[in-house]
Amino acid sequence: MSARLSTRLTERFGLDHPIIGAPMAMAGGGRLAAAVSDAGGLGLIGGGYGDAEWIEKQFRAAGNASVGCGFITWSLERKPGLLDQVLKHRPTALMLSFGDPRPFIGAIAEAGVRLICQCQTLDHVRQALGAGAAVIVAQGDEAGGHGGGRGTMAFVPETVDLVRRESPDTLVVGAGGVADGRGLAAALALGADGVLVGTRLWASNEALVHPNHHAAILRSGGDATVRTSIPDKARGFAWPSGHSIRVLNNDYIRRWTGREAELEANIAAEGPKYAKAFEQGDAENAAVVFGEGAGLIAAIEPAAAIIEKMVEGAVRALRMAGSQIRG
Amino acid sequence: MSARLSTRLTERFGLDHPIIGAPMAMAGGGRLAAAVSDAGGLGLIGGGYGDAEWIEKQFRAAGNASVGCGFITWSLERKPGLLDQVLKHRPTALMLSFGDPRPFIGAIAEAGVRLICQCQTLDHVRQALGAGAAVIVAQGDEAGGHGGGRGTMAFVPETVDLVRRESPDTLVVGAGGVADGRGLAAALALGADGVLVGTRLWASNEALVHPNHHAAILRSGGDATVRTSIPDKARGFAWPSGHSIRVLNNDYIRRWTGREAELEANIAAEGPKYAKAFEQGDAENAAVVFGEGAGLIAAIEPAAAIIEKMVEGAVRALRMAGSQIRG
Repeated sequence: MSARLSTRLTERFGLDHPIIGAPMAMAGGGRLAAAVSDAGGLGLIGGGYGDAEWIEKQFRAAGNASVGCGFITWSLERKPGLLDQVLKHRPTALMLSFGDPRPFIGAIAEAGVRLICQCQTLDHVRQALGAGAAVIVAQGDEAGGHGGGRGTMAFVPETVDLVRRESPDTLVVGAGGVADGRGLAAALALGADGVLVGTRLWASNEALVHPNHHAAILRSGGDATVRTSIPDKARGFAWPSGHSIRVLNNDYIRRWTGREAELEANIAAEGPKYAKAFEQGDAENAAVVFGEGAGLIAAIEPAAAIIEKMVEGAVRALRMAGSQIRG
Repeated sequence: MSARLSTRLTERFGLDHPIIGAPMAMAGGGRLAAAVSDAGGLGLIGGGYGDAEWIEKQFRAAGNASVGCGFITWSLERKPGLLDQVLKHRPTALMLSFGDPRPFIGAIAEAGVRLICQCQTLDHVRQALGAGAAVIVAQGDEAGGHGGGRGTMAFVPETVDLVRRESPDTLVVGAGGVADGRGLAAALALGADGVLVGTRLWASNEALVHPNHHAAILRSGGDATVRTSIPDKARGFAWPSGHSIRVLNNDYIRRWTGREAELEANIAAEGPKYAKAFEQGDAENAAVVFGEGAGLIAAIEPAAAIIEKMVEGAVRALRMAGSQIRG
């Protein structure tokens, strides 16, 4: 058997590997979450914008696997009933991102479910500590999908320092640009207890991603993405300011950049056009959502293989780096 | 004696530590470069926008220390005589950033001086390999000063992969958000041969930085910076598009953000005002140039102490992360 990584995250959550699968809206369904958990990580269903029926379907798809669920916090505020719905499934963890978690912490704690809060700034981290989060995800700007602000490299250790000072029992997980074993090794070297992986698992067989979108990531390097608000405007999602979405810089993004007001004015026609193109997997006329880790991904693979290789690669990277120590 | 890190960078350049001091325009003079080299790293004088007299003064200040020099490539194009001036000092290395290095590689190679190219995208990396660079600096968006584009976390390993494929003898150094030993450890885990350090050495006793600016970094976290082009407009520097400068998001930046055209229209009055405020160390009415590593810096210290602690911290971080391997 190959070597493993044992951290506070694996111990606390009873995992084989210090890897959390990001609860990617739309792409992260029950099948992917179950595959991540079955492979020894912690899989999370992407509760996204809160479609109750879809979420039920995904919990069914996860079967008996021990999975959690993630929500977009500001969106959950508009459909608070969803939280109870999900808590009834006894999720392994509940993750909240993008908004004030405090309105929900009572119900989560009462259900005995652990809270994971994803943060993009130190103020978010402080808020999450105040909310009693068991795990802080320090998400860097490299990440695919929503987020933005700080780079992973300095944000993770700064978060580690803050958490160690104010709540040493709370775990810190790094996210953003972690797409292979070297990223996991680097996150551990920065002091994190593990990583949250989005883009690399988006490029898995189990992700709910159109084959054309998968083809797009395979031909893209990490320079190919951009942060923008265009896909949110096209979908009519009222994201609070300060959050953007990292996507492939494709024809659609280039076409509307600088013309956001026009897109919003024509949303009655443009909205359905966008939705149809996305559904059809048209990789140039809707957003293709992945991050800067794209350049480290050479194949669409099963989640289990991705996780196994990531752990092997991390062990190799840490041993290689450690072998350079003299004295 | 404490443990050290021995990498291809230390071997190739005869260093004690795999750390290059960034050639910071204005802040990185001969005294800092010499202190970095004397401490076992590779110190580089910041040739910046190319003031011939200033550069001579800095080489004198470096004394007998073995230092190199860095230039802003597009600026050097306008004053090509400076290259010969610097090569006469027999620098340990010549670093070029921000522009096409090819016009200068003949003279550098003829002088037997090693070329370091700082890159922000994979196209830059390919160009630098074509130019015969001995070292590629993969600079992430977190970095203070000019740069921008990719986050360090995924850009470094993607650069490592590209260089390994196309020119395996070329070294790769990570930069951007590396401000303590954990960052150095992470860069090595990502496959880099070392790091280039700006912000942390900007916050050293030897840097040519006003005490008020040093006070500003000590009270700032990593969330306090922003990428902008305002300081370049205020100084009348014709930076090519695509490059921004990361600085403290202070009153000056807030005041002019969104009013860049007005600043340029009033440059006859605003230019000298900016220059005076900068010279006087007014930390709210001119740019204060540091990166996201700010949140990891708690004291202004001698460069030698910074480097020693960084190496000790990296060894500790790698041992700590490595101790989590089981089996």
